[in-house]
Amino acid sequence: MYDLIIKNGFVVSPSSTVKCDVAVNGKQIAGLGTYDVSEGKRVIDAEGKYVLPGVIEAHMHCMAPFQGCLGANSFYEQSVSAAFGGVTMYMDFANMSKGDSPFKQALARADEMKEAAIDYSVHGKFVESTPEAMADIEKMADYGIPTFKMFMTYKKEGVMSDDETMLKVFQKAKEVNGLPMVHCESNAIAETNIEKCEAAGDLSWVNFAKCKPVLCEAEAFARAAYFAEYVGNALLVVHTTNGEALNTARRAHGKGLPIYVETGPHYLTLFDDLYEGENGHLAICSPPLRTPKEAAELWEGLKDGTILLTGSDDCTFDVDEKSMFLEKNPDGTWKQDFRKVVNGMSGIEIRLPLLLSEGVSKGRISINKVCELTSTNIAKIYGCYPQKGIIAPGADADIVLVDMEKEVTLSKDVLHNNISYCLHEGFKVKGYPVMTISKGEVIVEDGEFKGRKGAGEFIKRRINPAYLKKYSLN
Amino acid sequence: MYDLIIKNGFVVSPSSTVKCDVAVNGKQIAGLGTYDVSEGKRVIDAEGKYVLPGVIEAHMHCMAPFQGCLGANSFYEQSVSAAFGGVTMYMDFANMSKGDSPFKQALARADEMKEAAIDYSVHGKFVESTPEAMADIEKMADYGIPTFKMFMTYKKEGVMSDDETMLKVFQKAKEVNGLPMVHCESNAIAETNIEKCEAAGDLSWVNFAKCKPVLCEAEAFARAAYFAEYVGNALLVVHTTNGEALNTARRAHGKGLPIYVETGPHYLTLFDDLYEGENGHLAICSPPLRTPKEAAELWEGLKDGTILLTGSDDCTFDVDEKSMFLEKNPDGTWKQDFRKVVNGMSGIEIRLPLLLSEGVSKGRISINKVCELTSTNIAKIYGCYPQKGIIAPGADADIVLVDMEKEVTLSKDVLHNNISYCLHEGFKVKGYPVMTISKGEVIVEDGEFKGRKGAGEFIKRRINPAYLKKYSLN
Amino acid sequence: MYDLIIKNGFVVSPSSTVKCDVAVNGKQIAGLGTYDVSEGKRVIDAEGKYVLPGVIEAHMHCMAPFQGCLGANSFYEQSVSAAFGGVTMYMDFANMSKGDSPFKQALARADEMKEAAIDYSVHGKFVESTPEAMADIEKMADYGIPTFKMFMTYKKEGVMSDDETMLKVFQKAKEVNGLPMVHCESNAIAETNIEKCEAAGDLSWVNFAKCKPVLCEAEAFARAAYFAEYVGNALLVVHTTNGEALNTARRAHGKGLPIYVETGPHYLTLFDDLYEGENGHLAICSPPLRTPKEAAELWEGLKDGTILLTGSDDCTFDVDEKSMFLEKNPDGTWKQDFRKVVNGMSGIEIRLPLLLSEGVSKGRISINKVCELTSTNIAKIYGCYPQKGIIAPGADADIVLVDMEKEVTLSKDVLHNNISYCLHEGFKVKGYPVMTISKGEVIVEDGEFKGRKGAGEFIKRRINPAYLKKYSLN
Amino acid sequence: MYDLIIKNGFVVSPSSTVKCDVAVNGKQIAGLGTYDVSEGKRVIDAEGKYVLPGVIEAHMHCMAPFQGCLGANSFYEQSVSAAFGGVTMYMDFANMSKGDSPFKQALARADEMKEAAIDYSVHGKFVESTPEAMADIEKMADYGIPTFKMFMTYKKEGVMSDDETMLKVFQKAKEVNGLPMVHCESNAIAETNIEKCEAAGDLSWVNFAKCKPVLCEAEAFARAAYFAEYVGNALLVVHTTNGEALNTARRAHGKGLPIYVETGPHYLTLFDDLYEGENGHLAICSPPLRTPKEAAELWEGLKDGTILLTGSDDCTFDVDEKSMFLEKNPDGTWKQDFRKVVNGMSGIEIRLPLLLSEGVSKGRISINKVCELTSTNIAKIYGCYPQKGIIAPGADADIVLVDMEKEVTLSKDVLHNNISYCLHEGFKVKGYPVMTISKGEVIVEDGEFKGRKGAGEFIKRRINPAYLKKYSLN
Repeated sequence: MYDLIIKNGFVVSPSSTVKCDVAVNGKQIAGLGTYDVSEGKRVIDAEGKYVLPGVIEAHMHCMAPFQGCLGANSFYEQSVSAAFGGVTMYMDFANMSKGDSPFKQALARADEMKEAAIDYSVHGKFVESTPEAMADIEKMADYGIPTFKMFMTYKKEGVMSDDETMLKVFQKAKEVNGLPMVHCESNAIAETNIEKCEAAGDLSWVNFAKCKPVLCEAEAFARAAYFAEYVGNALLVVHTTNGEALNTARRAHGKGLPIYVETGPHYLTLFDDLYEGENGHLAICSPPLRTPKEAAELWEGLKDGTILLTGSDDCTFDVDEKSMFLEKNPDGTWKQDFRKVVNGMSGIEIRLPLLLSEGVSKGRISINKVCELTSTNIAKIYGCYPQKGIIAPGADADIVLVDMEKEVTLSKDVLHNNISYCLHEGFKVKGYPVMTISKGEVIVEDGEFKGRKGAGEFIKRRINPAYLKKYSLN
Repeated sequence: MYDLIIKNGFVVSPSSTVKCDVAVNGKQIAGLGTYDVSEGKRVIDAEGKYVLPGVIEAHMHCMAPFQGCLGANSFYEQSVSAAFGGVTMYMDFANMSKGDSPFKQALARADEMKEAAIDYSVHGKFVESTPEAMADIEKMADYGIPTFKMFMTYKKEGVMSDDETMLKVFQKAKEVNGLPMVHCESNAIAETNIEKCEAAGDLSWVNFAKCKPVLCEAEAFARAAYFAEYVGNALLVVHTTNGEALNTARRAHGKGLPIYVETGPHYLTLFDDLYEGENGHLAICSPPLRTPKEAAELWEGLKDGTILLTGSDDCTFDVDEKSMFLEKNPDGTWKQDFRKVVNGMSGIEIRLPLLLSEGVSKGRISINKVCELTSTNIAKIYGCYPQKGIIAPGADADIVLVDMEKEVTLSKDVLHNNISYCLHEGFKVKGYPVMTISKGEVIVEDGEFKGRKGAGEFIKRRINPAYLKKYSLN
Repeated sequence: MYDLIIKNGFVVSPSSTVKCDVAVNGKQIAGLGTYDVSEGKRVIDAEGKYVLPGVIEAHMHCMAPFQGCLGANSFYEQSVSAAFGGVTMYMDFANMSKGDSPFKQALARADEMKEAAIDYSVHGKFVESTPEAMADIEKMADYGIPTFKMFMTYKKEGVMSDDETMLKVFQKAKEVNGLPMVHCESNAIAETNIEKCEAAGDLSWVNFAKCKPVLCEAEAFARAAYFAEYVGNALLVVHTTNGEALNTARRAHGKGLPIYVETGPHYLTLFDDLYEGENGHLAICSPPLRTPKEAAELWEGLKDGTILLTGSDDCTFDVDEKSMFLEKNPDGTWKQDFRKVVNGMSGIEIRLPLLLSEGVSKGRISINKVCELTSTNIAKIYGCYPQKGIIAPGADADIVLVDMEKEVTLSKDVLHNNISYCLHEGFKVKGYPVMTISKGEVIVEDGEFKGRKGAGEFIKRRINPAYLKKYSLN
Repeated sequence: MYDLIIKNGFVVSPSSTVKCDVAVNGKQIAGLGTYDVSEGKRVIDAEGKYVLPGVIEAHMHCMAPFQGCLGANSFYEQSVSAAFGGVTMYMDFANMSKGDSPFKQALARADEMKEAAIDYSVHGKFVESTPEAMADIEKMADYGIPTFKMFMTYKKEGVMSDDETMLKVFQKAKEVNGLPMVHCESNAIAETNIEKCEAAGDLSWVNFAKCKPVLCEAEAFARAAYFAEYVGNALLVVHTTNGEALNTARRAHGKGLPIYVETGPHYLTLFDDLYEGENGHLAICSPPLRTPKEAAELWEGLKDGTILLTGSDDCTFDVDEKSMFLEKNPDGTWKQDFRKVVNGMSGIEIRLPLLLSEGVSKGRISINKVCELTSTNIAKIYGCYPQKGIIAPGADADIVLVDMEKEVTLSKDVLHNNISYCLHEGFKVKGYPVMTISKGEVIVEDGEFKGRKGAGEFIKRRINPAYLKKYSLN
């Protein structure tokens, strides 16, 4: 007798799509095969549906003080929204200012996340390379936190790591089988551009994007990649947006260097014309949205294996927070000043739908590739595989059922966060998660949340050292 | 109650290694999970072993009249030898001369193969593009034979397809979702070189290799790739031996073109110094063996996904056939004349061991990659997936158990063919198949063959059209 | 006292533009410097003009029987037209059929050319590799004819060299410091396409171009380049039309291989929309005209040094010959059948103007680059440098004066051949030759021809062996 | 009557070698041609010699306070040594500390250089981007100083420009048709490495080189190239030492970006094994000497046009200054501490000989290429062409006569500086300058200096804007 049997679905892995049943006992998957209905306490009919390992969100910022804002959702609320998007585990970042202890801040963050309805983890963050901070790296890795985030920009905001800090964190991460994560934008290009905009008195939304062009990101990407090559360790570059950066990655991959590249669904589906609108500030994020040309380059990167991960970079700033430091003109329009707008946008709930629809339904990539990009590769690279990221006997029963025929028009009204706008308002998708199972429990079903606050557990992570030595996940 | 349970092994797929049990009922895999010993009529303890889908050999020449020779083994004998190497399915080629019907010859070949102990299929072959031959392509595809082999050399032997024939077969194959397979060597380079050797009176084994250098192969590879690109269909290039050809493939892959590349273990482990020996004629094959430099290039190609298949190009010519047209010098040495030596060498039984040992044990590639290269990718590209090539519920129970700790010194004495020499004599390998299961029957166990003549069935094949349109198997 | 002084012009070489005077004595340049008007028997005021070495046309077909046609101009007439275009030396090809002696045919051709008003030379041509033909290669090189042309297509017309012939000519050319020249089009692609058109009953002008697409040329280019690399000798590829072929050349150049690439002005300025017109047959040439995309690729190749030569591929077929085998529909339109149209178009007189106008006046390339492309590089690669191709003391006084401000609307009426149409009719150019000097004699001046029939001499050529060993002209 | 006639030499330009005479009147070249001996006040027999435009040294540091040292030679002394190496013009850099006015410092430097025996110019230098410093850029360009040097390392020495400064100087240089020059080394890599060496207590000469490896330079090169691409202006990278950096340049050139690359003869002829010697500190320079592998990569770059300039980076630190801050061990050996050794080595006199011998005599490059690399390209890129860099009527009569048969064993004793050691001691060269002419005056002849102190003039420079917009010098 099994606690749960999922019958007749197409079970998806990166390399196969197999029609069979999945049996679950307790929190884990018990078997794949053909089971009689009588063998299950509960039997879910997945005929015609795809059965994927639960989505993992490794790139989000919830309740994270930044540029004077904090976000509209609690970790619990955000886990509910995530679950509707098929997400069964998420990871946030330690909040760090100079002088803080990275390890303590990571633990504090993990503590905040206890209220989550899904499993969770946390990434370390570094803004300086004091001896104390360096010493924390080993402690974090021992504790199960082997990923260390740095920003190459946001100097004025106090969170930039300079080149020396990056090199030292890279070096120390290597010693403990850890993985640095980097936000790549040239602070120098961005800041000298912003100075020029200030001098010219044009701080419009459109100019925000112009201050952080493709080359701003590409230079920083190349620099980080060289640092990683020099140190001899892997590197994960978050939210890559363009082919110029991907070409740097391709050259590195050609040498076997483990430069892992993430992109986000917003860069595939939203473009910089949003900055032309009156409310373009709602679309301000870094790197900024690009053009359809760059989106096409990203799809190529997804197809050819240059990009192995996706992340939403979810932030939960609502209209009020995005606008709180702005003033208005006499005619009621915004006095546009991009310096006063917090960077970030929400997206945790729509990552899977966007990839299913724009990727699979439109014939660009297979559902197996989506499985990799949303779950398997993330579990592998971030170090929680094979507990997560696969539907196989012994793995956690984190599962999402997908109906590739289901059509949804995205809207703030169909999403489950507390945000009063949706940049994809009216965007039609085909292919949608219809049931989410976390450790054997159905937590989303028939459009209702059935999970519970605090059900999530902290997942200790260890990265396979092979992944840190050469560019290969199999 | 299951017919067979394989307990506690590491079940391998291209993207995962999972410790679990495999249950078999009849000819097929019933499930993956945890099974009680009591549930199996037979239970195999695979603790510490790897459980891979059976090896597929899609490149062999058995009982194939060529250059006045035929080979030493029958199809049955060769299936026994293959089974000891973990092979559970093999495919040979139709014998063709001008005027023959490709379809009839393919059927005749399949008929010959009925005696096999393992499943089998056959490839069509083309030496001309008569209207009749072209019409056969559709019939073959309908019948389950969607692969069509051509040689770009061997003009004098009467089996070369000229450029026009290639183009026409490529075009027709495209219309029926079929896949051309090509042996790439420039006949013009080879023949003008041979003429020069004849004129110079030096037809030594060493000169054989010099007549067919890397550029001889690379030119033909580029030509075939351009033809495939022009026609707009996939292409499979057999036994690729060097990085120059792989670079052509890389450029094609960069455009998304489905140029599938095979290499053989002999090119990874044997080198052209063999031609310096008195019995160098035993190592004559086409393309000839290369140097360690080219082998290193091939390993790069295996690692980075440029090469997706391996094949042994197994021929069963024994010393007597390799030597039958040669004369001797007064001092008893061979009067070396490479024109009189049949091309080909045996290898069907050692493909898996060589890849396990040189690949996995030496840290070059993972066992998951070996699974792809010997089984999954072959099943996918040749069109018998997911019946073959995967360990999953519903697939044929073709399974090979591998002991990565087992060490074997290769020798004619440890192999199971009728060949009185072994080019790898004395070559030590670590990692070896220890049990082979064909459609639920254990056919090799404890060093003994337990299968039976005629147990093999003809497998009808259909290729996933997506694989023929762009370079991607997931 | 000098015979001629050209005062105050800008004297152009590939690496410099220097304002100075040029003094001529007899047939040769005597000096560069500042000369008093009194020192010259004749003084030409070149103030504001550019003084370039005379244009060399190494790619033309005059009075060459092909596809049942011969052309409208005699060698003398063509030399007059050429002179108006700044050409001071031209080279044609031996006429060859199987069985002919290449050397005898080359000598016969040179004899025909004696009537020329400008200096001349001739290229050998090969259609087979008989021992007699091979033996002629050395004789020709000794005689001063070190260039050997082959066609990779036109099998039906009897002038194709097959792969074996190419290899043998390449090899023999290497032995005598000779240079093979190749017309690259895959005969197999072209002919199977034509067969398809025949079967479909659509032999329209538009389909002519479709039968010989970019990949048809690119495959042959790659094949020839591999042959040259294998043989280890230089290669000159005539009339290259696209970036795909140029990329093959770039890879070769990266290895130092001397693959010299020519393009023609028609591929830079005329496009395949001409085939859509009723008289599209007038634009039929091989390779066919391409699109603006390919022209842009060619400009890149000119800029970055991938293309080092230009040639007009001048043919003098008039409307009557281009149309002579065609029939008409009842409504008076052509019954389009591209098989019945002789390939080729005229252009010898407008090569320099088109490069000056589209290149220099439009800012794409410098006048120094034009000097290379029309004269210096041609003299170097074809082996008549520094007798030709440079304005320096001791060189032949072959000079063209260019007025970069002169604007001309191209038209059959402004050209000086016997052709009743001009594909560039109405094309406006800025930058035009205004005076042509051949061996010290002014032969074109004020729009009048002042040279004389038979003034041309046969120029014996020897190629600098360094140019045949690596890709470098300095 | 001419002041000077150079008879019967081979006159060299980048694109030609022409046997003719050169006539000089006053300071300028009057003509090229054939002159009677009676026409010259002085006639030099150059039979068998090569006549090249005088070498220009645009990269030197004379009397430049750095790391507590100053150098052993005055500007006059250095001009004498230079003249023996065929140098007829040199350019040094303004000395700059924070707070200094770049323009004033440049003028002060020019004033110091007045004592030179050869013509001279000076480059601006930037260490910060204050408004005052930015304003100086326009003034310098107006004055004839359009080149602006920055260092990406030497932060502790106070001369590093940070990324913001670089971007601002690049931008301002663009506005005035100026050219930034950059020393590319990642300060972060270098400094974190030095910290590690300090911590490990190993500050040996060998470790100096390890602190500044190829990737240290390559990262900085890529960063500078991206900045230049972003700003949209040309960039000159000094003393490039390796193929990784050249590959970045190649990609830029492929896009048409004007990234001009210099290398130095020491990187072609000296290797890092020098650091293994007791007196390895004498070979300390930045970037450090590399291995023969990198030298081979540099030769490739010279051949294929990736490197267009050479410079000696001449410093005149003698043994005493190189050693002045070092202590000794009890056994008399150096207490190695690379931090205490001033960076730099001498080389101004041997640049031409080394290129002639290792380049031309060894068959790697032509003498025309040497002409480009030592004179013509430097004159063009730095903005003093065609006054300098060419032998043509109207150009300054700066000429060096080269005897390609002359063999010299390099040694401190054959050089004419005040340095008591020579890193090339015992290095044999074939090909040597035998006479140097500056503005019509023979200043070196028969091994004797015949020039005079203060004969040099400041050369105002203007760069051809075309060179700053795309990568092309013709």
